Amino acid sequence: MKDLNEKIVNNQLEPISFTNVTIHDKFWEPRLKTHKSTTLKACLDQCEKTGRILNFAKAAGHMQGEFEGIFFNDSDVYKVLEGVAYSLMSHPDPSLEEKVDGIIDEIASAQQEDGYLLCYFILKEQDKKWTDMDKHEMYCGGHLIEAAVAYYNATGKRKLLDVACKLADHYDNTFGPGKRHWVPGHEEIELALVKLYRQTKEERYWKLANWLLEQRGHGYGKGVIWDRKDWGPEYCQDDKPIREMTDVSGHAVRAMYLYTAITDIAKVTGDQGYINALDRLWESVVLRNMYITGGIGPSKHNEGFTEDYDMPNDTAYCETCASVGMVYWNHRMNLLNGDSKYADVVERAMYNGVLSGISLSGDKFFYVNPLSSNGTHHRVEWFNTSCCPTQLSRFIPSIGDYSYASSEQGIWVNLYVESSVSIPVEESHVVLRQKTHYPWNGKVEITVESDRKNNCDLNLRFPGWCKSAQVYINGEPVQKLVTEKGYIKLNKTWEPGDTVIVNFDMPVERVHAHPKVKANEGKVAIQRGPLVYCIEHVDNEKKFESIEITPDTKFLVKQNPDLLGGITTIHGISEKDKEFVAIPYYVWDNREPGPMNVWINENKN
Amino acid sequence: MKDLNEKIVNNQLEPISFTNVTIHDKFWEPRLKTHKSTTLKACLDQCEKTGRILNFAKAAGHMQGEFEGIFFNDSDVYKVLEGVAYSLMSHPDPSLEEKVDGIIDEIASAQQEDGYLLCYFILKEQDKKWTDMDKHEMYCGGHLIEAAVAYYNATGKRKLLDVACKLADHYDNTFGPGKRHWVPGHEEIELALVKLYRQTKEERYWKLANWLLEQRGHGYGKGVIWDRKDWGPEYCQDDKPIREMTDVSGHAVRAMYLYTAITDIAKVTGDQGYINALDRLWESVVLRNMYITGGIGPSKHNEGFTEDYDMPNDTAYCETCASVGMVYWNHRMNLLNGDSKYADVVERAMYNGVLSGISLSGDKFFYVNPLSSNGTHHRVEWFNTSCCPTQLSRFIPSIGDYSYASSEQGIWVNLYVESSVSIPVEESHVVLRQKTHYPWNGKVEITVESDRKNNCDLNLRFPGWCKSAQVYINGEPVQKLVTEKGYIKLNKTWEPGDTVIVNFDMPVERVHAHPKVKANEGKVAIQRGPLVYCIEHVDNEKKFESIEITPDTKFLVKQNPDLLGGITTIHGISEKDKEFVAIPYYVWDNREPGPMNVWINENKN
Repeated sequence: MKDLNEKIVNNQLEPISFTNVTIHDKFWEPRLKTHKSTTLKACLDQCEKTGRILNFAKAAGHMQGEFEGIFFNDSDVYKVLEGVAYSLMSHPDPSLEEKVDGIIDEIASAQQEDGYLLCYFILKEQDKKWTDMDKHEMYCGGHLIEAAVAYYNATGKRKLLDVACKLADHYDNTFGPGKRHWVPGHEEIELALVKLYRQTKEERYWKLANWLLEQRGHGYGKGVIWDRKDWGPEYCQDDKPIREMTDVSGHAVRAMYLYTAITDIAKVTGDQGYINALDRLWESVVLRNMYITGGIGPSKHNEGFTEDYDMPNDTAYCETCASVGMVYWNHRMNLLNGDSKYADVVERAMYNGVLSGISLSGDKFFYVNPLSSNGTHHRVEWFNTSCCPTQLSRFIPSIGDYSYASSEQGIWVNLYVESSVSIPVEESHVVLRQKTHYPWNGKVEITVESDRKNNCDLNLRFPGWCKSAQVYINGEPVQKLVTEKGYIKLNKTWEPGDTVIVNFDMPVERVHAHPKVKANEGKVAIQRGPLVYCIEHVDNEKKFESIEITPDTKFLVKQNPDLLGGITTIHGISEKDKEFVAIPYYVWDNREPGPMNVWINENKN
Repeated sequence: MKDLNEKIVNNQLEPISFTNVTIHDKFWEPRLKTHKSTTLKACLDQCEKTGRILNFAKAAGHMQGEFEGIFFNDSDVYKVLEGVAYSLMSHPDPSLEEKVDGIIDEIASAQQEDGYLLCYFILKEQDKKWTDMDKHEMYCGGHLIEAAVAYYNATGKRKLLDVACKLADHYDNTFGPGKRHWVPGHEEIELALVKLYRQTKEERYWKLANWLLEQRGHGYGKGVIWDRKDWGPEYCQDDKPIREMTDVSGHAVRAMYLYTAITDIAKVTGDQGYINALDRLWESVVLRNMYITGGIGPSKHNEGFTEDYDMPNDTAYCETCASVGMVYWNHRMNLLNGDSKYADVVERAMYNGVLSGISLSGDKFFYVNPLSSNGTHHRVEWFNTSCCPTQLSRFIPSIGDYSYASSEQGIWVNLYVESSVSIPVEESHVVLRQKTHYPWNGKVEITVESDRKNNCDLNLRFPGWCKSAQVYINGEPVQKLVTEKGYIKLNKTWEPGDTVIVNFDMPVERVHAHPKVKANEGKVAIQRGPLVYCIEHVDNEKKFESIEITPDTKFLVKQNPDLLGGITTIHGISEKDKEFVAIPYYVWDNREPGPMNVWINENKN
């Protein structure tokens, strides 16, 4: 195996952690505050109320009682802990930390001598451990690892990390070359083991991640994941080895977690077979199976994919977790390739399909994110399978991960968020301050706040939704603009106080679906900047049914500081008295219940 | 006949003369200055040098010599005088006025006892007067009338107006019901007689204009205009009566002048047959025969139309005069209908196909305005048939005519030009000040400067090229926007100091031709706001031939205060190192000669 620290793949970027980023953004800051004040607390409360945390105390023998809930419920606790960890990194909170330390004590106590840890089997079916590849043992372990790494970095406390390592060692002792085969039915462990390797530098974890990926597609899952229920091997991406994969299939979240791990590993190894498979899979997902919201997986049946261009709106499944998975995967694809088309997907999913998953109040959630509703689909406080709320509890505090990246010769600005960032460049740090009212306005101002000069490229993503822009350095229009893979590449010796201003033109755009998407024949969607809009009944009471967009329809763009946390509405105005109001998709179902549509009838006459 | 002052047609607007408009516009003011300092002088000099003015002295018997030049050369002198008159209205100039008074003396002296006036026949073929309907006798007379009305309004001097009335009386004595038939081969007299009627209130001129329109399409022109050269009756719009006209045909300038007169008359009479014909003709011209530049008439052969969608680029004739004719006609269509789609055409023609007709220096002209050049097509100082330079000499100083209009209940802003205007509304005046950097920027600020309150509609054109906008009244976003026929209708009791701000989103747009336009298959044009752009060799030397636009092409929009009088360039930037620079079409051929294209190859891969 090659030296893991060697940079093999061209263009590859290094991530900049959200811990290097201070967000001052009017769009995101309220969401971060609500996350801390409400979402984390709501998720912790629910984990307590529903017995998810008590399962650990029972498994530890600290209290009596049967396992409560579904077999993979441990994962929710881990995901909330991961969210707590990220929150503590930016907002220390001793009482919260103390509470979590108590939970971690129970988790550690529940771990068995050999390292095994899943409350369900410990409490319910000790003899059935490692007999059913679809019982999410490693899925839950993966989430434990992610939480442990996060909590260690947040607090310096090793206890959970030690549990994680002991668990990973148990996996490594049980499975691997010359030992047992194993195909994790729900991927997650693979990307987690890469994280654990990065944290501990323990190569066994890296090798196990690689080995687990290579286990897929050889039939080892037959009868122990698939071919025993109504699923075939595609359901859990076990139908063929990775290097042969061509099209996305099966359960959407599983696919995203798998692709995320493949990308992590390909970035280090440069494995061309993996990279080619990723390129094929990306085209399959993004060009033929992605909703305009960045949502994926049209079907409730398999929580996943059916066939290309099958994109119903009212029954669109588009699980919140899957959109978060799109962010994870596409962010890594961008780190691998340095191509803004991946950041475009990160942005699309984040501002639309992910954010719609949580209410403005921060305590109600969508599992399913359809693009059309008859008025009966609403966010709720919790689910029996509550992966989505806990997904958001860990995703939101880490959104700063997606704004910046670095490479040997440059700084990369991927998402426009008002923030400050410190980026390591050539044994120094470049400090930037970004000012913007994005996503409401396309003006971005970036000021160099470092105290020394740096010659490097400043790579600014030219968003896919944007056709034209104006770029100024220190007030002067840039003479000749160079773009590379969708980034504006500005090179100079940057001095303290240097300011770059970019005005990205942000008109309202009509978007048509691919002609093969039958559900959207004769329909059009409207988008402004990264935000997909929808029409809700509450804004369009009497005429909701008759709303249509004609060639003459013009759009009034209006700031509403007091509406839904401060949004820009789009007012369709046409000659036929078919005026309508559209709001960003991510804020729908935050007022009176009623029908909603993203795709609007188009009248071409 | 109905009372001519009765308003019959709904929505009709009253024109606001440029004399009520003070232009402070950075785009137009330099052109107005150049017009006064250079263009007028150049055209006057040319009329002297080429014998056009001396022909009048000869016809008056004030000097010896033969008629020099082409039979319709008188018209150029009249058009320059009209331009001088408009210039004098805004910029008094006693020495210029004195010079023109001298020319008018010669014109008056040349007029014959019975009122007849055309130097060609007076000097060359007295016995052939009124024998050839295509010898432009009334065409020249029409231009005399327009000049006379303008000069009277500019100076209060009646001499030329008296000549014009005497000439019109001669026409009226010679032609009309019970008298001789006449079909003017080159229309112009009809719209001029309407002007003369408006000025003098002499109904005979109005009736003669109507009668002349009704002469068409009955075969009176056979053998005396058409069917003797290689033209049929369509060449001069004499193939059918006006009410039966369906499709544009023949000579483009003639068609425009005819349609202008029809619209003038329909606006007063409300004649539904005329209005229906105009609607059909407008669709024929604008939807099936207009270039993206607002140019019309693809063929050099007939200086006019061929068949629908026949739009070659390199051989596009697009006579400058025809684009000016599009402005005249479409402005009147808007006055008749109050529909912004007509103002869209005014703007398109004015900022592209018209303005390309004159060099930035103001003394060189295009007769022909192709959309592609191999580098050999250049503006020149004068032509044997010099209708286009003299057309511009009268058009440019009157551009203020097209910005505003009024109706009983409202003010209409049709073109965005930094200016002040005084508009009569309900026995009072509303004074507005418009601030804007249009066409470079979509922000428009309109402040009420009247000293009293006025309740009226402020109708702001929502440009056809613009999809979305933001509208504020006194800093507050407008709550509900009403549009009607493409105008934003703002109603309130306007108070001094009230300010309306509109931001029209102005991104770079890709434009595709109608699929039936074969010349533009596989090509795309770029437009920003009202301006059509082109690529010139001088900006794109080595790569001109290989320039293409791909789906990934992004556009950098750059102000260049020192280039070509201050323009915004568009830089196409793409992944394939096919960067290119585009400039507004209207400024092409103002630097080193070289190839030019409006339509650019599109690579969809």
